[in-house]
Amino acid sequence: MAKEIFDYKIDENMDLFALIKTADVRIAKNGSKFISFIFCDHSGEIMAKFWDASDEDIENFQEGRVVHITGKRENYQNNPQIKIFNLHLPHDGEPNDPLDFVPRAPEDTSSMEKDFNAFFLEIKNQTWSKIVHYLIKKYHDRFFTFPAAKKNHHAFAGGLAYHTLSILRLAKAVTEEYDFVDRSLLYAGAILHDLGKVIELSGPIATRYTLEGNLVGHIVLIDEQIVEACQKLDIDQQSQDVILLRHMILAHHGLMEYGSPVQPHLMEAEILHHLDDLDASIQMMKGALDHTEEGEFSERIFGLDGRNFYKPEDKK
Amino acid sequence: MAKEIFDYKIDENMDLFALIKTADVRIAKNGSKFISFIFCDHSGEIMAKFWDASDEDIENFQEGRVVHITGKRENYQNNPQIKIFNLHLPHDGEPNDPLDFVPRAPEDTSSMEKDFNAFFLEIKNQTWSKIVHYLIKKYHDRFFTFPAAKKNHHAFAGGLAYHTLSILRLAKAVTEEYDFVDRSLLYAGAILHDLGKVIELSGPIATRYTLEGNLVGHIVLIDEQIVEACQKLDIDQQSQDVILLRHMILAHHGLMEYGSPVQPHLMEAEILHHLDDLDASIQMMKGALDHTEEGEFSERIFGLDGRNFYKPEDKK
Amino acid sequence: MAKEIFDYKIDENMDLFALIKTADVRIAKNGSKFISFIFCDHSGEIMAKFWDASDEDIENFQEGRVVHITGKRENYQNNPQIKIFNLHLPHDGEPNDPLDFVPRAPEDTSSMEKDFNAFFLEIKNQTWSKIVHYLIKKYHDRFFTFPAAKKNHHAFAGGLAYHTLSILRLAKAVTEEYDFVDRSLLYAGAILHDLGKVIELSGPIATRYTLEGNLVGHIVLIDEQIVEACQKLDIDQQSQDVILLRHMILAHHGLMEYGSPVQPHLMEAEILHHLDDLDASIQMMKGALDHTEEGEFSERIFGLDGRNFYKPEDKK
Amino acid sequence: MAKEIFDYKIDENMDLFALIKTADVRIAKNGSKFISFIFCDHSGEIMAKFWDASDEDIENFQEGRVVHITGKRENYQNNPQIKIFNLHLPHDGEPNDPLDFVPRAPEDTSSMEKDFNAFFLEIKNQTWSKIVHYLIKKYHDRFFTFPAAKKNHHAFAGGLAYHTLSILRLAKAVTEEYDFVDRSLLYAGAILHDLGKVIELSGPIATRYTLEGNLVGHIVLIDEQIVEACQKLDIDQQSQDVILLRHMILAHHGLMEYGSPVQPHLMEAEILHHLDDLDASIQMMKGALDHTEEGEFSERIFGLDGRNFYKPEDKK
Amino acid sequence: MAKEIFDYKIDENMDLFALIKTADVRIAKNGSKFISFIFCDHSGEIMAKFWDASDEDIENFQEGRVVHITGKRENYQNNPQIKIFNLHLPHDGEPNDPLDFVPRAPEDTSSMEKDFNAFFLEIKNQTWSKIVHYLIKKYHDRFFTFPAAKKNHHAFAGGLAYHTLSILRLAKAVTEEYDFVDRSLLYAGAILHDLGKVIELSGPIATRYTLEGNLVGHIVLIDEQIVEACQKLDIDQQSQDVILLRHMILAHHGLMEYGSPVQPHLMEAEILHHLDDLDASIQMMKGALDHTEEGEFSERIFGLDGRNFYKPEDKK
Amino acid sequence: MAKEIFDYKIDENMDLFALIKTADVRIAKNGSKFISFIFCDHSGEIMAKFWDASDEDIENFQEGRVVHITGKRENYQNNPQIKIFNLHLPHDGEPNDPLDFVPRAPEDTSSMEKDFNAFFLEIKNQTWSKIVHYLIKKYHDRFFTFPAAKKNHHAFAGGLAYHTLSILRLAKAVTEEYDFVDRSLLYAGAILHDLGKVIELSGPIATRYTLEGNLVGHIVLIDEQIVEACQKLDIDQQSQDVILLRHMILAHHGLMEYGSPVQPHLMEAEILHHLDDLDASIQMMKGALDHTEEGEFSERIFGLDGRNFYKPEDKK
Repeated sequence: MAKEIFDYKIDENMDLFALIKTADVRIAKNGSKFISFIFCDHSGEIMAKFWDASDEDIENFQEGRVVHITGKRENYQNNPQIKIFNLHLPHDGEPNDPLDFVPRAPEDTSSMEKDFNAFFLEIKNQTWSKIVHYLIKKYHDRFFTFPAAKKNHHAFAGGLAYHTLSILRLAKAVTEEYDFVDRSLLYAGAILHDLGKVIELSGPIATRYTLEGNLVGHIVLIDEQIVEACQKLDIDQQSQDVILLRHMILAHHGLMEYGSPVQPHLMEAEILHHLDDLDASIQMMKGALDHTEEGEFSERIFGLDGRNFYKPEDKK
Repeated sequence: MAKEIFDYKIDENMDLFALIKTADVRIAKNGSKFISFIFCDHSGEIMAKFWDASDEDIENFQEGRVVHITGKRENYQNNPQIKIFNLHLPHDGEPNDPLDFVPRAPEDTSSMEKDFNAFFLEIKNQTWSKIVHYLIKKYHDRFFTFPAAKKNHHAFAGGLAYHTLSILRLAKAVTEEYDFVDRSLLYAGAILHDLGKVIELSGPIATRYTLEGNLVGHIVLIDEQIVEACQKLDIDQQSQDVILLRHMILAHHGLMEYGSPVQPHLMEAEILHHLDDLDASIQMMKGALDHTEEGEFSERIFGLDGRNFYKPEDKK
Repeated sequence: MAKEIFDYKIDENMDLFALIKTADVRIAKNGSKFISFIFCDHSGEIMAKFWDASDEDIENFQEGRVVHITGKRENYQNNPQIKIFNLHLPHDGEPNDPLDFVPRAPEDTSSMEKDFNAFFLEIKNQTWSKIVHYLIKKYHDRFFTFPAAKKNHHAFAGGLAYHTLSILRLAKAVTEEYDFVDRSLLYAGAILHDLGKVIELSGPIATRYTLEGNLVGHIVLIDEQIVEACQKLDIDQQSQDVILLRHMILAHHGLMEYGSPVQPHLMEAEILHHLDDLDASIQMMKGALDHTEEGEFSERIFGLDGRNFYKPEDKK
Repeated sequence: MAKEIFDYKIDENMDLFALIKTADVRIAKNGSKFISFIFCDHSGEIMAKFWDASDEDIENFQEGRVVHITGKRENYQNNPQIKIFNLHLPHDGEPNDPLDFVPRAPEDTSSMEKDFNAFFLEIKNQTWSKIVHYLIKKYHDRFFTFPAAKKNHHAFAGGLAYHTLSILRLAKAVTEEYDFVDRSLLYAGAILHDLGKVIELSGPIATRYTLEGNLVGHIVLIDEQIVEACQKLDIDQQSQDVILLRHMILAHHGLMEYGSPVQPHLMEAEILHHLDDLDASIQMMKGALDHTEEGEFSERIFGLDGRNFYKPEDKK
Repeated sequence: MAKEIFDYKIDENMDLFALIKTADVRIAKNGSKFISFIFCDHSGEIMAKFWDASDEDIENFQEGRVVHITGKRENYQNNPQIKIFNLHLPHDGEPNDPLDFVPRAPEDTSSMEKDFNAFFLEIKNQTWSKIVHYLIKKYHDRFFTFPAAKKNHHAFAGGLAYHTLSILRLAKAVTEEYDFVDRSLLYAGAILHDLGKVIELSGPIATRYTLEGNLVGHIVLIDEQIVEACQKLDIDQQSQDVILLRHMILAHHGLMEYGSPVQPHLMEAEILHHLDDLDASIQMMKGALDHTEEGEFSERIFGLDGRNFYKPEDKK
Repeated sequence: MAKEIFDYKIDENMDLFALIKTADVRIAKNGSKFISFIFCDHSGEIMAKFWDASDEDIENFQEGRVVHITGKRENYQNNPQIKIFNLHLPHDGEPNDPLDFVPRAPEDTSSMEKDFNAFFLEIKNQTWSKIVHYLIKKYHDRFFTFPAAKKNHHAFAGGLAYHTLSILRLAKAVTEEYDFVDRSLLYAGAILHDLGKVIELSGPIATRYTLEGNLVGHIVLIDEQIVEACQKLDIDQQSQDVILLRHMILAHHGLMEYGSPVQPHLMEAEILHHLDDLDASIQMMKGALDHTEEGEFSERIFGLDGRNFYKPEDKK
């Protein structure tokens, strides 16, 4: 199998295909243009600068395309990067499918799907069960391929389903420890909480915010889908069941300044908010520590108040 | 015509019918119960305490009922109040319709309706025009009878329509001064911005928050109605027109900590937020200054950072 | 068995012994003194006012004493209370041991201790294991009888151990879901995180803050105990192991404004902070919802930004 | 007439005279010096970098001078800029008057002056009328030529008068809608509210803050002028009229953290604050959207919490 | 000499004359009126309630009057109070001059004046020296008799001069330790920094805010006096000396949210802000600790973030 | 004596030895590496960039080494810098001891030590006196050579002792002005307040944070030393004396968000916080103004809310 980005050691010469995740054209202080790339494959993401870019280069090397790279693996201030020797677009017969190079969730779709099914069965309330089935069916493919975010945590293909599944597993532990929590409501809310991202984001490759994503936002976008589902499924929108489920999604950011139009006023909504936060925090820390040497502090993490994290020495 | 609450002078004996707006049962420090009332009629609201309330009194004198009051008009720390001599429920043939005692907007419904029609005609964009007509028709009666809030500003029957109309008039001035503003969008957004309150609140008498009001909130409640309207009217929900209109409503609280799931990212949404704020501020100040003597400061206004306002002397 | 406080229905006459949890002497508006009590037994806490208290009453009915109460069970604005007919101190032979009336954790000490032992075994790192054993042994009795707080969450005898155990159970689920988390460190930190409360608080009856509690605080108080333990156990204080463990405790409030002198800079410290927060939140919500009727909102919870929580109807 | 900056299309070669608005000398990463320019003429402002600047270049091409430019019009990340081929100072007979190149308010002075006079007549209170006349007369020329700010909104010649006039027109609409507002006070306050900027700023060309501007600020600087005016006009400084007018100016930033030594405690002061904010916001959004393509988001606007604004497609 | 308030022990019967500092009429829960008093004399302030007040009592016992009191000295929740047996206005020949009962600064006027003169001589800069002399002369009597605040710190006759003098003494120590500080500027700023309070407040007895105090504030009020002084003394207002002195006063609250229209941008202004804060804090703590028992915490101090302070035991 | 950095005038050629305080390797936009240096000697610190650095250069010119520099003294945007012509490491016999080039406190160690001894004698309480002596003896050498911070204020050798001494001198003035302040407690707290920095920081040359510094912090590090001292000296840790002293140190940052685990609840702790703040502010302003021209504003100071400070003209 072909060597991937992080199979190369520091200072080793590289020769591989990768996906252009982002390509920003900038102007150097000497007036010429250069491209600031993020390349990726299954092994992760890496930065690189391409100096003195011609108009043709800019035209060729755009976001979402696969390229062939020769260069050298370097490390600069704890950030891995490539010193580029040469770039070219794939020739006929060479690897050219972006999906083959997108970082993916650590579990595969069929395995995740099986786990989800077990959770679906635990939703005993019929209203919630029907709505959840309807919407997961409607957005099935996107749910299992979209990332959970453009950057920060779970920004990989399948990240949305993977993040959702992690929360469900934590939720299971919570309902076992605290038997007064409504398991059906917590699971239904957890499954739908971020589903609006399949409308907010453009997809797993070269992920952007859609216009609806920017002007409406994923919280309200999925709320609207619940309302539509009620109409299709002939469920009374004014029923307590529907109001509770909508509240689970609307309140899951916890604080209004984080975009929830209401704060949690249900025990299960408060718990969902905590679990969402916990899983996101762990993924952000993991992402940063994966590229940190033992005995060092990671880069600062924007989503965690700009804190950096220490990776202990001799950790077994 | 019968004398109303504020027709009585301070220290004058009172004998009148009024509506019980709120009735809170509390326990006095001597252990007996008393009722803390707010009475109202068209002339305004006034507080009163009813001491040593029996269980029968508590049963009789509930929120939303009309009562006959004898007592004395007093003033206590700038707050008008009644010293109650006697309370009884109306006998047959005496006034008994709560709606006859609810404070009302300073303009009557038919006059406001006429003005609204003129604004409707200025919405040239067909998508927005259809949605606005559909929703105002659907909620016509509530729109013209509901208050704009439980307390604070515009807490009177017809307050919702009156507040909306005031904003439209200011919006007209803005579009005349700044000709690059999209008048249709600003008017459509202004008309719908608070319409969710007809679902959030219970009505003009003994106003309470509904369960949906508490757990979903008026901003998302009207957003959902726009989505439904699109389905009924066969309008494409993904069109830019619909997204822009939804953004107008979602962003109108300006800051996320005030309950908007998104901040304004459209010029017209930013303007709507300012005008909503301005009209609400003016009504709060007016409400407080109406009961303030010249040369004095009003009570502190919760919705304006607890500030009090000075009423100048000799103001002509 | 004798009937306890919450075995009585609303409006039922009461005749029972209970513990005086707090007794505040106040002056009524008529100038006489009264005592504002909180009584408690295993079934929970209840308020009561004792009017026209004599100096002898004030002397007799102090915090931490058992009393015999006759009265009536009432409910006032969602807060249960007792209307007192008569109070007297126990006669010889009547129940008189405060510890028999202190609310207790839902699990008994021996059961909790067994569970703790299982967790202790999972701490594979010898430094952490030794320090944890040393300190839990040193404060064994206090650890299993102290509350976790004076009020708010886990304010019952055994609350400290119970809160700690709940966190450990959640921590177990986290380490199963995220295999890169250091289980030994997370468990050791969790066990010690609030142990300083055995110095900060005065004990399970009539709980007060000690002078050290007020001027040093439980976070630094347990940090100091770790330092002492190192000296006794001949462990190098400058070793990474000790620094990491201290950081776990020092950072567990998450934000400096909540009293942590440092923010979390270790993945395990960040996780401990989340789990502590989650368990405390759940206990606060449970406490409030236990006294709330279905279909109603609970009282506002100070420790959760003053939010109130809805208890759904027909919850099975 | 000569072509102006924004008459050139993207990628078109340019040959024109313009004013140097700012000229910052910086050091490039290769160690040589370059000048970062903002050029302007009536059509707007544009950035440009001048590489490898000699000491003579730095001496020649300073803020406030007119230069002849040859270059190419480019666009870089939504920011228009010029690629400079050559710069030289005007030769004899070539355009050389900075005032001919300063961006100007969209209305000319005589038209604005006429409108102001109509507003002056509406100030019926003699105290306010005399003070306003005195100060506008004293600073007449500066008032009609100064910008309202160094950057952000209304940063063009005549911007101060234009901003003031916009507020007066909005104020007129407010007083028509709310007849209990004191028109004289609102107009007098609006006219004077930013007049201190004629002392705070250095003038319309190469605008800087004066020492008084930095250490005293425009709010207190105009307050001091009102005090002086009272002395010249023999008006009692302790009179309510004078105190009210001073309060209008002192409170117009609304919040103390924005530099008002007192918050608004007069209805008219609160309204003036809202209108000032509204007009400034609209001008900032207009400025950003003027250089934004349809269907795109503008650059982020510092004065509006860093938000960017969407320019809808197909806007007619 | 007559016994004063705090010469009486707890539970001792009292018989003395005192000044009514404040008299608030309130309505008891039984519907009758009572007066909530603060009495004072040189020994301090004490609260008392007067039950079942008649209209004549309310008329007689107003703020600013001397009364004869018989009653009992009590202590209630760390707050000293009087249980009133009887009140009457002084008869002819009995003490009746409010000034004889106002709490006073611990140093007398002549002693303070002498110290001030020494500081005046240290102001070597002629501009500052002249302005300071002019204004202290103009407001001499008020400066030495006014309090520094209505409540909180230095709320006693002569408090303004005493507070100013304390700051000057600290300023002297600062200039000795840091020889690069401009002593003249620091002293001049310190002397004038709170002088605006002689216009903001009504005087030493029954202290209220004036209308100017409320709508303009003491910071701007003294700034205006400096401007006037310049005109009388023929000093150039635009000179750096005057601008620096004005900045000292305008910036002395340190943060704009505390009412300074500009933050400190001069070293001496920053230092003055610190010293003002330090002296005010010490006086607030002293005031609270003076009435606290050893080994107890004081009441919470509003001006110090609601903190309470511990008074150590055995303090010699 | 050899010329030092700031003995050279702007544009003068330089030839001197200096210490490399920091050396950051960065990548230029042309892809080559450069080193961004801060050099220092007794006269102060200065920046410089070294272009096109080879791997050998990077290896040679590291933090903490002495180098020989030839270059030119320049000034760039109020920041002094060196244009480097050549760098080399010292040859045998040339100056090579970093300690000879570290900026030092303006007072020498023996003079400071003498002053400290006088303060030690003023600590009359035996508990505090013993602890202070024990700890100052234990860390004597570090106390007199460490800086008080890595950057910001007192970042020079001996800065810790110098900062401590400045606070003691201010504390002396405070205890003279306010005779009710406990001098022993204030002095003892002042001496120890920052002593934890000898563990938090690595030393006077190439100062870094240690792992304990990052994960525990200087406040808790010195608290732990006090606890240890009590054990060695056989002092009761639970005594009020020890609790008070620990509180002095723990609370000295004033606000919890600045890292104090408790806020000040002792008068002396509040005063220590103020004096610490005052001395740090003065040193930061002095540092910035020392490199500012008269009539100009300094650079912005991060530790003072980003404010810049004006240096008046003609200051004698």
